[in-house]
Amino acid sequence: MNKKLMIAAALVAVAGVAAGLAPEMKKWQKGKGWGWVWGAQDEIGSLNEMTDASRLAALRLAKQGKVYDLGVLYDRNTYKWPGHSPGEIIAFRTPEGVKRQQDIPGVIQDNPTKTAWHSCALFINDNVATQIDGLGHATEGEDDPWYNGFKEKDWGGNWGPRKCDASTIPSVIARGVLIDVAGAKGVDALPPNTAITPADLEEALKKQGTTLEPGDVVLIRTGTLRHWGETGADHATIGRHDSAGITLESAKWLVAEHGAMLVGSDTSGLEYNPAPEDNKAYREKYKSFMPVHNYLLIEQGVHIGEFHNLEELAREKAYEFCYVACTNKIKGATAGFTLRPIAIR
Amino acid sequence: MNKKLMIAAALVAVAGVAAGLAPEMKKWQKGKGWGWVWGAQDEIGSLNEMTDASRLAALRLAKQGKVYDLGVLYDRNTYKWPGHSPGEIIAFRTPEGVKRQQDIPGVIQDNPTKTAWHSCALFINDNVATQIDGLGHATEGEDDPWYNGFKEKDWGGNWGPRKCDASTIPSVIARGVLIDVAGAKGVDALPPNTAITPADLEEALKKQGTTLEPGDVVLIRTGTLRHWGETGADHATIGRHDSAGITLESAKWLVAEHGAMLVGSDTSGLEYNPAPEDNKAYREKYKSFMPVHNYLLIEQGVHIGEFHNLEELAREKAYEFCYVACTNKIKGATAGFTLRPIAIR
Amino acid sequence: MNKKLMIAAALVAVAGVAAGLAPEMKKWQKGKGWGWVWGAQDEIGSLNEMTDASRLAALRLAKQGKVYDLGVLYDRNTYKWPGHSPGEIIAFRTPEGVKRQQDIPGVIQDNPTKTAWHSCALFINDNVATQIDGLGHATEGEDDPWYNGFKEKDWGGNWGPRKCDASTIPSVIARGVLIDVAGAKGVDALPPNTAITPADLEEALKKQGTTLEPGDVVLIRTGTLRHWGETGADHATIGRHDSAGITLESAKWLVAEHGAMLVGSDTSGLEYNPAPEDNKAYREKYKSFMPVHNYLLIEQGVHIGEFHNLEELAREKAYEFCYVACTNKIKGATAGFTLRPIAIR
Amino acid sequence: MNKKLMIAAALVAVAGVAAGLAPEMKKWQKGKGWGWVWGAQDEIGSLNEMTDASRLAALRLAKQGKVYDLGVLYDRNTYKWPGHSPGEIIAFRTPEGVKRQQDIPGVIQDNPTKTAWHSCALFINDNVATQIDGLGHATEGEDDPWYNGFKEKDWGGNWGPRKCDASTIPSVIARGVLIDVAGAKGVDALPPNTAITPADLEEALKKQGTTLEPGDVVLIRTGTLRHWGETGADHATIGRHDSAGITLESAKWLVAEHGAMLVGSDTSGLEYNPAPEDNKAYREKYKSFMPVHNYLLIEQGVHIGEFHNLEELAREKAYEFCYVACTNKIKGATAGFTLRPIAIR
Repeated sequence: MNKKLMIAAALVAVAGVAAGLAPEMKKWQKGKGWGWVWGAQDEIGSLNEMTDASRLAALRLAKQGKVYDLGVLYDRNTYKWPGHSPGEIIAFRTPEGVKRQQDIPGVIQDNPTKTAWHSCALFINDNVATQIDGLGHATEGEDDPWYNGFKEKDWGGNWGPRKCDASTIPSVIARGVLIDVAGAKGVDALPPNTAITPADLEEALKKQGTTLEPGDVVLIRTGTLRHWGETGADHATIGRHDSAGITLESAKWLVAEHGAMLVGSDTSGLEYNPAPEDNKAYREKYKSFMPVHNYLLIEQGVHIGEFHNLEELAREKAYEFCYVACTNKIKGATAGFTLRPIAIR
Repeated sequence: MNKKLMIAAALVAVAGVAAGLAPEMKKWQKGKGWGWVWGAQDEIGSLNEMTDASRLAALRLAKQGKVYDLGVLYDRNTYKWPGHSPGEIIAFRTPEGVKRQQDIPGVIQDNPTKTAWHSCALFINDNVATQIDGLGHATEGEDDPWYNGFKEKDWGGNWGPRKCDASTIPSVIARGVLIDVAGAKGVDALPPNTAITPADLEEALKKQGTTLEPGDVVLIRTGTLRHWGETGADHATIGRHDSAGITLESAKWLVAEHGAMLVGSDTSGLEYNPAPEDNKAYREKYKSFMPVHNYLLIEQGVHIGEFHNLEELAREKAYEFCYVACTNKIKGATAGFTLRPIAIR
Repeated sequence: MNKKLMIAAALVAVAGVAAGLAPEMKKWQKGKGWGWVWGAQDEIGSLNEMTDASRLAALRLAKQGKVYDLGVLYDRNTYKWPGHSPGEIIAFRTPEGVKRQQDIPGVIQDNPTKTAWHSCALFINDNVATQIDGLGHATEGEDDPWYNGFKEKDWGGNWGPRKCDASTIPSVIARGVLIDVAGAKGVDALPPNTAITPADLEEALKKQGTTLEPGDVVLIRTGTLRHWGETGADHATIGRHDSAGITLESAKWLVAEHGAMLVGSDTSGLEYNPAPEDNKAYREKYKSFMPVHNYLLIEQGVHIGEFHNLEELAREKAYEFCYVACTNKIKGATAGFTLRPIAIR
Repeated sequence: MNKKLMIAAALVAVAGVAAGLAPEMKKWQKGKGWGWVWGAQDEIGSLNEMTDASRLAALRLAKQGKVYDLGVLYDRNTYKWPGHSPGEIIAFRTPEGVKRQQDIPGVIQDNPTKTAWHSCALFINDNVATQIDGLGHATEGEDDPWYNGFKEKDWGGNWGPRKCDASTIPSVIARGVLIDVAGAKGVDALPPNTAITPADLEEALKKQGTTLEPGDVVLIRTGTLRHWGETGADHATIGRHDSAGITLESAKWLVAEHGAMLVGSDTSGLEYNPAPEDNKAYREKYKSFMPVHNYLLIEQGVHIGEFHNLEELAREKAYEFCYVACTNKIKGATAGFTLRPIAIR
């Protein structure tokens, strides 16, 4: 491409974004969202909406080159949902250990520079720290089907689901929008068991002056991660705020009405968790113990972002940005985990 | 920012890149490279060169929004250096298992929708699949110091090095350059134990018509990953080609002469491994069994990229691009692993 | 018990064993063996035959107090069936690491003696080194039932089978008999893919002058473990001999005709594995790829001993002894593993 | 050996025990104990005292053949010292998973009997459930030496200590003695932070009518394990009683005065742990945070038994018995763990 053409192309893209034109959507329908519309073998869901043009438009949202790191740091003490397996990062080889163990004589002998190395072995769960849930994470129904009707008896296995594992999640480059609910309510972090309703989202968007567009990555801030500290060791405090989240109605409002292509938050599970005294009524109303997961992952094919650190974005009132997230490529993993998504401005 | 200003800023950035202006470097010196120039507490090395402006310039290299996935897919069968620990991705919770095990009665009872989930537990090494080596990976000398003089007795530990672990690697957004050595030599993949010299690099760059700039991420293609298949299960074939790599002279040429800020390739270790019959002479000449690692990581503070899949870039002759890599945030890990770096055009 | 009574009791026991009287059996029937005869909830199988009297009689076989260690030493390099997960024993805490990591200040501070400790974290499979297979190890049929008809849909789970896991194996104290087939055939170790027939067992017993009794632990020597070395690192040699083993006919002869209460050998799987060229015919004849496992574990409720080191017993022609094995108490494990059974003479 | 000789030999052994004669000791000295008396390469310590004769005498203590299982059952919820790594027992292969995964076509095809199997992968610490500490577990001093002066810089490594790992612990067959301190004090379990003194031990022995002999395995009951339940899940209650234990003075009394060859209890660490308010004085007096471990393991070469379930022995007032314990054979492990020692009467 010569210089003139290049500048022209850039101008077109910049102008398009500046004019507020949403990239055209392939399958999304207002009032309905997506559903299983991408073909019987699809494992990607709403992220199929991404195109070169949509990515380029998102990249052009970066005007300064400033990067916000949305990942939280993980170690053995990190808060996680108690139903997941624990974790250890263990020094597997150390400079002293390599030399003492003498198990690789060809390497250690004739070693006048005394060269050695560190490496670690990890035991880790695939649902820890900053995550993007794969579409095979949640199942619902008699034969345990997940997104697109893949069933356990057909596509289960000993090494993770064999359809819609997290390695199928394409690199996400899209317009990102922060909805700072905690900020709009004037609190550091939402109180425990706060149910975030569509009205709450609308109110926050209005205060921010932000407009949602189909194809957005929408990140909702509860303020929980202001208590993360270095590695999420204060389980009691994090656990309290971690119960705030969106209701099923909000999930529908975001996806069916506004075309959110990925929905995330700064909690471990995105969705509202009722207080013990409200649990019975909640279960009776929503049937599932995680209706938002079921709706987004299974019914809509919309990935969920969890434990995204939105504190710096909120401090700087950075409500619109280019969101980039690249999931680790591990076959069978049910979520991208210990991720470092970024927001670029 | 209003629309006019925004367009103007974009134009400036676009024009700067179009004019071939390299971003100004902070500490790099031609002929010397970097070294320990960033302060006694620095854990980041040459990546300190990144600025908002350099990132914005790199992002502006994307003209189409096309993404190349440079990560390789990992599973239990994946080829790795035999000195690392093995790996398993194991279904920890499954829909059937959760219901049979009955260990979380509050979740499974009152579950008319029969909701359940998948999660996995992983045992995994932090030096597998697509990696970026942290500056604490290699050590050299009596007290086992690594980059910036951090010593094992001060900064070692049971859970990985406590300085320069991979979680300190900032998100990398920079101009990326592919040097397709295999392509320039007209082979699918370089023969085993091929030593890639500065002359080889120069020849390939010349054939490509590509110019290096200080601050580049330089990725060197041996063609090894054309044998990766789905998950790197053909150890014999991969292992043979995996021994091709750059010499110490090439590493110096890239960093000290050309300012490469991160150097990577499509092999497990970037550097040339001699054939058994050449090993003795090699050791006598270079002293260390991994002189390129020692030079880049320890002496220069330049991170190393490994097992980057460059096949699609090579097929499309995509020699210049925006490189984006975000390392998993795991405290103590010695490398980013199972990564999905991307090239954007 | 006063001294006279004690001596009298000992004399009775000694005399009984000396006279070759077998302990009375509860459920075993010649020609049939056991089967599912111990009640619908039973998880123990033929080991239910043990009584105080049978144990005392076995203990009285010890005349010298000499102990033979039947366990093999396990480490990361140890030979195992390739379908099992790999293993690592990793230093989790080390004296230096504890002090450097400074994660337990209350312990390390005020520590004038500089006290510290070692501990290890293990990733390990429950079917490695010297084993006793639990009755839930093998399944056969449409609903994947195992011993006593326990089915996967009822008694499976995410953390091992919930019936007949190896923690249900009682401490085994019984008369042990070595059948040294390799010795009888005058070879160091049986050739690969040797099928040990009832005639082979009879011949060896005759040469030894040993008689089987109902309730015996029968250990069959192929000689494979003479190639174990320190930790079973020579996979090629071990793997070759490891394919020798008993046929289904021999398993039936041992259990149904002779009342063997536990059958073991010095290989990883006890049973004969056909050479590739014989595999098709073998499968057609026996239907299962492991008919001996199915017969012993599922049909008869007879536990299987694997990788029992019989070399010293063979050298000393110690054909009869008191066998003692105590399985590790890990809920959900499918086999006792890395065991150290002993023979006492 | 003919029948007459056999009976005669048995009589001699029985008579010796009946007469209360202690087996002759090789190196033990009253008032001193052992120390590093077994040679510079020794890794076994006081267990070197065992001989065929001592084992035979111990076996002859079994008069009925009744077995007491001293192991506690372990699972993911089991109480352990918080400084150890967590554990999971995970279904690695399941009948359904094997068939769905289709990763071993040669096994699963041509499988008319639908044979399959269960196996588990474990992540586990080597200091959990019923244990015998190896002599390399504790270190004390500048160069982190352990028993017999083995130092970390010489005998450390990445995969556990390379001297005195738990695989070196010989099968223990010895006279076992229960000292039921909780019983003697008339309590179900000793109150938290109870310091068991020599006077307490003497009082309990006197009440029981039990006499210690050199070479004994001495097991001291606090009653903590009456709160174990199925798998030690009630951490709060276990943790409280777990702080009861013997003082350094008691350890010396047992070893130096009475020749205890192995000292164990029903707690996680055998020794007294002071209440927080007494901690400062305790540290000032004893210097080490675990003086009993240092004395027994390092100075005396006496192994420590932990979490031995003594409840049934106490209920039956079974104060003297044959103790048998066979440690798992894992190279580098620092303790035998998840063991099932037995007492035979």
